[in-house]
Amino acid sequence: MPLELALRHAGPRRVVVRGELLGLADAPLVIVAGGISAGRHAAAGRDDATPGWWDAQVGPGRAIDTRRLRVLAIDWLGADGALDVPIDSADQADALAAVLDALGVGRALAFIGASYGAMVGLQFAARHGDRIERLVAISGAHRAHPYASAWRALQRQCVALGRSEGAVSRGLALARQFAMLSYRTPEEFGERFDAPPALHDGVARCAAEDYLAHCGQRYAARWTSTAFLRLSESIDLHRVDPAAVRVPTTVVAIEEDRLVPLADLQQLVETLGGPATLRPLRSRYGHDAFLKEDAAIARLLTEALAAAEGGAK
Amino acid sequence: MPLELALRHAGPRRVVVRGELLGLADAPLVIVAGGISAGRHAAAGRDDATPGWWDAQVGPGRAIDTRRLRVLAIDWLGADGALDVPIDSADQADALAAVLDALGVGRALAFIGASYGAMVGLQFAARHGDRIERLVAISGAHRAHPYASAWRALQRQCVALGRSEGAVSRGLALARQFAMLSYRTPEEFGERFDAPPALHDGVARCAAEDYLAHCGQRYAARWTSTAFLRLSESIDLHRVDPAAVRVPTTVVAIEEDRLVPLADLQQLVETLGGPATLRPLRSRYGHDAFLKEDAAIARLLTEALAAAEGGAK
Repeated sequence: MPLELALRHAGPRRVVVRGELLGLADAPLVIVAGGISAGRHAAAGRDDATPGWWDAQVGPGRAIDTRRLRVLAIDWLGADGALDVPIDSADQADALAAVLDALGVGRALAFIGASYGAMVGLQFAARHGDRIERLVAISGAHRAHPYASAWRALQRQCVALGRSEGAVSRGLALARQFAMLSYRTPEEFGERFDAPPALHDGVARCAAEDYLAHCGQRYAARWTSTAFLRLSESIDLHRVDPAAVRVPTTVVAIEEDRLVPLADLQQLVETLGGPATLRPLRSRYGHDAFLKEDAAIARLLTEALAAAEGGAK
Repeated sequence: MPLELALRHAGPRRVVVRGELLGLADAPLVIVAGGISAGRHAAAGRDDATPGWWDAQVGPGRAIDTRRLRVLAIDWLGADGALDVPIDSADQADALAAVLDALGVGRALAFIGASYGAMVGLQFAARHGDRIERLVAISGAHRAHPYASAWRALQRQCVALGRSEGAVSRGLALARQFAMLSYRTPEEFGERFDAPPALHDGVARCAAEDYLAHCGQRYAARWTSTAFLRLSESIDLHRVDPAAVRVPTTVVAIEEDRLVPLADLQQLVETLGGPATLRPLRSRYGHDAFLKEDAAIARLLTEALAAAEGGAK
């Protein structure tokens, strides 16, 4: 869908938004949004049976039940690498609002966002609060934490180093490996990679290195460096005034999250402008818990959607 | 001092160990050892009045009082970049034992090590336990934690990327910046770098980036990539059987440490082969607390040295 958007930092631009709809036509709509590497294909469906990024939660009989809901997900602005300007979470929220317009949906049942998707959800609730009954924000706050921003800034420098030296893919793969570390936890690595390092040709190779290298290479094969740089940067540009969010909101916090400290989500809940509930979880998967803790996340989503449906009646 | 050492991984080698002595000749000797970038110049003294890496703890009237103690510190094997082989913490311990031999010191009062220095201290206590009354191990365990090892392995890949692309200094500076993040905490960064990122020429620059870049450049100007690679690797190669340490030991743990989890130091204390005390501290400086929490560290050192002197009588 082509759109004319007034981008917060880059001004008016013609952009293309690619989305996917799942589930029942004319049913209440739920917007789902994940991390910067999650896109429009949230789950397997009739049109595309390949696995999506959130099959555990989206599908027939899942917490976000496609037998009685309609589900919308989009590719983030910038994900195709064609838009090489600063992209704000507000731009993503405005794009989603424009997609609702195009679909003729006045008011969606819920916006369920995790990680960057939670940041965009907060922006959406602040800018287009009349378009949703309820927000579920998992592992995303009103701003990026300065430590996490520093971590991402260094990842972008890996890409910059690779780019300026003609080793783009290697720089991008290395950046992704550092990102993976930030998504996971010492608890998980301590269990999975407990073996001592092995010496190969006089150089130590640590137990986690093969796994991380695989993650990095797979990422670099699928993404452009521009998409990574602009979406990573977008997380750091994100700021929302919590008081501007008056939509009923469920905030899900993971105590082990290395990127989004529990304290930031506590502060968010205390300063939101509408009814807000904090649901803390513990997970050895840290920031990635929304992709891993299927049962616990499903329970929270079911509860939040029931509350949204109660509100919508 | 030239030495013939049997390196654990690289076999017999002629190496040169550079050390510095401070304080009173013939007084009881205390070995001090810091992180991989700390060297023989622990504190300002008569021969070299420039600041050392531990002036806060070593000097006249300090916790490690040079008016009544003799203090030995060395440059780590590998620190000059000339030894390009896997270096074990056991090699460093053996080098220090050889230095004691050369000084004619049968038994030192204490080995006080922090970070990598604590790892070497544990090795020293396991291999040469009859040469010290007491060990103080600050923020270092019997093995590197797998998550921390992964973090360092990726830092070494930054150096490798820079090296193979003719940008050695840039790769080394970037590696050091990631290391700095691991030494510090979100708590500190949250306070120091709370400003939103600024856009410069259409690219966001986060609040911590100037500080980190400065740290990286300063490091790259003073160190070789080989020294960094081999000493970083040495941390990951480190393993000690705690049961082999029978020397009375004080273990200092920082709860906020992102590299050395409190749980690892608890396990260390529970399995040490001799009398052991765990002294947990809280610090917004995380792994770098031994360089920053001067008063709290001084109290612990004073107490440990008094215990060592009691034991030596």
